[in-house]
Amino acid sequence: MLIDKKISNFIDELASNSPTPGGGSVAALAGALGVALVSMVGNLTIGKKKYEDVEEDIKRVISSSEKLRYELSQLTEEDVKAFNNFMATYKLPKETEDEKKVRVEKIQESLIEAAKVPLKVAYKCLDIFSLSKEVAEKGNINVVSDAGVAVLMADAALESALINVKINLRMIKDEKVRTELSSSIKELLLKEKGQKEKVLKIVEERMK
Amino acid sequence: MLIDKKISNFIDELASNSPTPGGGSVAALAGALGVALVSMVGNLTIGKKKYEDVEEDIKRVISSSEKLRYELSQLTEEDVKAFNNFMATYKLPKETEDEKKVRVEKIQESLIEAAKVPLKVAYKCLDIFSLSKEVAEKGNINVVSDAGVAVLMADAALESALINVKINLRMIKDEKVRTELSSSIKELLLKEKGQKEKVLKIVEERMK
Repeated sequence: MLIDKKISNFIDELASNSPTPGGGSVAALAGALGVALVSMVGNLTIGKKKYEDVEEDIKRVISSSEKLRYELSQLTEEDVKAFNNFMATYKLPKETEDEKKVRVEKIQESLIEAAKVPLKVAYKCLDIFSLSKEVAEKGNINVVSDAGVAVLMADAALESALINVKINLRMIKDEKVRTELSSSIKELLLKEKGQKEKVLKIVEERMK
Repeated sequence: MLIDKKISNFIDELASNSPTPGGGSVAALAGALGVALVSMVGNLTIGKKKYEDVEEDIKRVISSSEKLRYELSQLTEEDVKAFNNFMATYKLPKETEDEKKVRVEKIQESLIEAAKVPLKVAYKCLDIFSLSKEVAEKGNINVVSDAGVAVLMADAALESALINVKINLRMIKDEKVRTELSSSIKELLLKEKGQKEKVLKIVEERMK
């Protein structure tokens, strides 16, 4: 598993001339880092007299953020797998007409799969916005900056994931799939709009 | 060292109710991830016939990005140390007037140090912009999306670092230091402005 690697080894592999791990895994990882910070702010808020009024809300946030953290961690791995599958299809035989046809079909199938992983990452990141907003508003004021970093990571992760959807989309030929992916991208961009700024404003206010 | 940890363990610790590692380390790590992707695009460009015209430029980029990658990886650790030093000063004795005075001084000193680490991170991230722009423009088109993720990470890292400067700045009393830090923040924001968008535009163009 990618997340079982040492950070230093992962960064070395990232920087190397191997195409995996790449930006897709970084997108999922950035999302996981962001949502882990939501959990951290939550965990430094619960059990404290000063924040007992929001205790139940924060517990609910932590339960969601921990679920997302697990899912995004898994998606770092799925991205590598999907990309390697895609690369493998290029090595399929292409001697006969039949082989050529099968190869092209398999390439297209693996491309669609490779586009769906970052799309999942993007949808998961969208869920981090409301969670980071809630910890920014209600969480322990001493770590409110971490709620800000959480939303910055979530937003960068979402946009990174979308770039990865787009680079695959570029080569997908199936018009129905193209339309579906394009409308998902539009939906995500629409839902993303202004979210980061909203959370950062709360963070800035509470840091004053 | 923080970067010697497994990714999964680091994310677990991040999510826990311990204030370190926190957003400061995530800022430096995000910067390291971003600049590692610059190196990756570079490494997948050099040695290829199609890109021999830009070979020397890309080699120069890689040499800078690898240096930054090392520095940002080190800064993940420095952030933890600076924060722990700050926390330790709170535990200094405060029985006598002298002790109280020394304690307040030490708290202030450690706060200034804790603000300087993310400031260093922010300046390093600024350097990633021009490098990611160069690989976005000249690098292997098959991995141009990774140049996009690189700049998104660099930008999120820079803004995350600035939030960490600000949360420390809030408690720093020395007016001279306050002014210096504030003007550094302003300078960084000014230099950051529009950089991410410029690189993303190139990436989008080349993905068409």
